[in-house]
Amino acid sequence: MFVPPTLRVALHQVGAEIDRRFDALLAVPDDPRADLYHAMRHAAIGGGKRLRPLLVFATAGLFGVDYGATARTACAIEAIHVYSLIHDDLPAMDDDDVRRGRPTVHKVHGEATAILAGDCLHALAFEWLADAATHPDPFVRAELIAELARASGPNGMAGGQMMDLEAEKARFDLNTVTRLQAMKTGALISCAVESGAILGRVAPDGRTGLRGYARDIGLAFQIADDLLDVEGDEDKAGKKLRKDQGAGKETFVSLLGIDRARAQAGMLVEQAMEHLHGHGAEADLLRAIARFVLDRDR
Amino acid sequence: MFVPPTLRVALHQVGAEIDRRFDALLAVPDDPRADLYHAMRHAAIGGGKRLRPLLVFATAGLFGVDYGATARTACAIEAIHVYSLIHDDLPAMDDDDVRRGRPTVHKVHGEATAILAGDCLHALAFEWLADAATHPDPFVRAELIAELARASGPNGMAGGQMMDLEAEKARFDLNTVTRLQAMKTGALISCAVESGAILGRVAPDGRTGLRGYARDIGLAFQIADDLLDVEGDEDKAGKKLRKDQGAGKETFVSLLGIDRARAQAGMLVEQAMEHLHGHGAEADLLRAIARFVLDRDR
Repeated sequence: MFVPPTLRVALHQVGAEIDRRFDALLAVPDDPRADLYHAMRHAAIGGGKRLRPLLVFATAGLFGVDYGATARTACAIEAIHVYSLIHDDLPAMDDDDVRRGRPTVHKVHGEATAILAGDCLHALAFEWLADAATHPDPFVRAELIAELARASGPNGMAGGQMMDLEAEKARFDLNTVTRLQAMKTGALISCAVESGAILGRVAPDGRTGLRGYARDIGLAFQIADDLLDVEGDEDKAGKKLRKDQGAGKETFVSLLGIDRARAQAGMLVEQAMEHLHGHGAEADLLRAIARFVLDRDR
Repeated sequence: MFVPPTLRVALHQVGAEIDRRFDALLAVPDDPRADLYHAMRHAAIGGGKRLRPLLVFATAGLFGVDYGATARTACAIEAIHVYSLIHDDLPAMDDDDVRRGRPTVHKVHGEATAILAGDCLHALAFEWLADAATHPDPFVRAELIAELARASGPNGMAGGQMMDLEAEKARFDLNTVTRLQAMKTGALISCAVESGAILGRVAPDGRTGLRGYARDIGLAFQIADDLLDVEGDEDKAGKKLRKDQGAGKETFVSLLGIDRARAQAGMLVEQAMEHLHGHGAEADLLRAIARFVLDRDR
């Protein structure tokens, strides 16, 4: 069981746990696939805030879930996030050379290996979840898989990325941008929280508050990202900024202006807190994460 | 339940069933993701021999499995196959312009949409399997998912494709080429047979014969593919041939010569038949498929 510490300690602990597990799960074989594994490791190990794993731990922590089950689920969800970063960075997609302050996978290993490394992390996420080591009850495993598959496919992350590519050609209004972001980043953030509740054997109708929390912080996270894109420092962010403006894409900031966007994000975090009103101090880590999504990278 | 007909009827019935299901599962939404769905439909509907779905039906047919469960599982496995074709055809990978006699997905919809269409079919395969509509028992669903994820990841299809890319740089021996092909095409063919047995509630130690059958026809299939690459007609095959030779890749034909390769494929099919000796006429469709893998596309 994971005992919720302060946010700083939790970020460190969860980051180290995810790195340790990826290191073991992605051991490099001594055969012609070595470069494929190096590419997966380059993207998966030693970088990122691990927000999604942290949300799995923080939510599962409310219900006293087994530590190993929590960590394996967190790893699977992070693997999907990492695969999406590899594919999004490809020349045909967002064409990014730098990610987390390091060259992107295709810059180091080539495009073909980058595509396959993403595909492999995608498959491995489901392989890990389907394994009985994740949870002894196959009903829980099937529910985790259904949730993750929905969150990552055309009605979630990948569908949102498609809308994001279309955003360069069309002029999206606030409703469409909100829907795009709810799919592109919100779905996997919600999946992390939902998965903690699934592991905690919370029935679907008992997850309403946690779902509201996840939806609100997911949207606040994206507004913060849009603010970072216009106000942030590239060295600190570890990636190229000011891209949306150049591409002529509508964002929360372009549609609302900086001040209203920042106020909106703050209000969403307040609203996320209210969704946790039924929980006591055991939900303080979730509360700290909600505040953190506004301040990260700055 | 699926009553095994003759091969010709089965190919037609299974092909029509898979097309009908993809058509319903991939209904085009009226929003900025429309092109993404058109891209998935372009690749998934109306083409291909549907060998993997046919193997699911033929194996499940041995055990009187529910028709809907069989068809959903067959669709999920075919979705993984289709996603792999989309990604393999990309310029950074095998750079193919024609597939099944039609322009490849990236030629019609662009590279970014092609990458995402593959990613979406990948996620949808697991979403469909995890759904209770596939099988009421979550243990069966989790087993189907574990099998498909293993078959498609770095120890299966995607790992085999990585080895195939490396084959242009190295000189592989017969053992390495055999392992490469067992992963690249064999794993998903074996998964189709294994999934029929999982649906039939056959315990793992009762699947030995079917596994041997699948392994043998998978290898025979690939040898036939290598023979087709040097002897076949591009118009009939519906794709570019003579690529391996140009790329300097070792194949079963380059390593064994045409005559020994053909003899080897024939011997594998005989051996596949022997693995079915415990079954009567109900396995005649599996026997017909074994003969078919040698003669397809010519």
